[in-house]
Amino acid sequence: MDIAIAVYPEYTSLDAMGPYQVLQHLPDATVSFVAAERGLLGDDNGALQIQIDRSFDETPSPDIIVVPGGTITRLIAHPGHPLVEWIRAVHPTTTWTTSVCTGSLVLGAAGLLDGLDATTHWSAYETLAGFGATPTEQRVVRQGKIMTAAGVSSGIDMALTLVGEIAGADVAEAIQLAIEYDPQPPFDSGSPTKARPEILELVQAISAEGEAALRARYAEQA
Amino acid sequence: MDIAIAVYPEYTSLDAMGPYQVLQHLPDATVSFVAAERGLLGDDNGALQIQIDRSFDETPSPDIIVVPGGTITRLIAHPGHPLVEWIRAVHPTTTWTTSVCTGSLVLGAAGLLDGLDATTHWSAYETLAGFGATPTEQRVVRQGKIMTAAGVSSGIDMALTLVGEIAGADVAEAIQLAIEYDPQPPFDSGSPTKARPEILELVQAISAEGEAALRARYAEQA
Repeated sequence: MDIAIAVYPEYTSLDAMGPYQVLQHLPDATVSFVAAERGLLGDDNGALQIQIDRSFDETPSPDIIVVPGGTITRLIAHPGHPLVEWIRAVHPTTTWTTSVCTGSLVLGAAGLLDGLDATTHWSAYETLAGFGATPTEQRVVRQGKIMTAAGVSSGIDMALTLVGEIAGADVAEAIQLAIEYDPQPPFDSGSPTKARPEILELVQAISAEGEAALRARYAEQA
Repeated sequence: MDIAIAVYPEYTSLDAMGPYQVLQHLPDATVSFVAAERGLLGDDNGALQIQIDRSFDETPSPDIIVVPGGTITRLIAHPGHPLVEWIRAVHPTTTWTTSVCTGSLVLGAAGLLDGLDATTHWSAYETLAGFGATPTEQRVVRQGKIMTAAGVSSGIDMALTLVGEIAGADVAEAIQLAIEYDPQPPFDSGSPTKARPEILELVQAISAEGEAALRARYAEQA
């Protein structure tokens, strides 16, 4: 089973690394990170640089794809972007096509979510709806062979759900135990409905600033 | 604030990547991955190769260190190993010295846990006790400026706890919301007390095989 985690400059690391930790334990599976080009590729913080040894062109028929998110998805989720075109090309022959966080915007741009329920980071429901999807607040949404997950850390839940579908509950439970996934968050602020209003406003303000800075940077480069 | 995530060949990726995702959002903090040498460094799966731009020698006085775990810790947790010696050297001037999973065995080997409560992956309590620590089943254990966390995924809980201590609850809650850390595991098998007995036996058997294979491989290299 060939599992390809599709990354791109400025993706959000945990979106990719959560599923990577879980899916690597699937029996008979090989996981790799793939991108438009070989070489070093940085995340949205920049401190994590990972080596890509396999390009999209070298990955024409993966069984499972995982598309992480990142603020940058708002800029790259359009036809013609290499990631979008690769997803469009490989999706017909995948057994599972999955996303974490705003990775679903990229699936949407590839035309995969029109008319389907899907989820994304809580800040991106409207953008997701723009691709014809019906955003839901569920943590993991399955529609046929497409599975979308909510923000960042939800990729762990999504990957365990996927393992259960592919290999059964025993294997998923074994992986959960191996990674001691018995979450005990010290605060209860993990969703917009649980967070205090002032915290929600703070995060919205910081996110808007971050997105504006990113857009300005890319406008300069263009 | 200089936060150093100390990695080494065959560490377990999520042990490092969970705290990395959380701690990078601490105000005025810079996070970097450090190791014995610059260059590419692989995790225990091998598919994740990260670029190290900062050696232990180049990191003499980090404010916070995070030490992830991995099966390999059973082989490297002894005086004289570069990671152990670096921890011993920098710990006196850190503000926080932390570990995830069997990273605590390395703290133990550096002499930091003698007489203290600490935690680790559930499979390593006895080994941890060998360093003079009192193993506890808590997810996150704080003793002064030392914070140890349980297996793999617990680094997220540990890092949020740490952010709360350093920057206050508002900042920790904002980060939790930003990464939508509202865990909803699809199974309830994340600890030895919750997992079914046959799942626990399965994981113990697979872990023992993995450790034996690792020991054999290193014996060949030696």
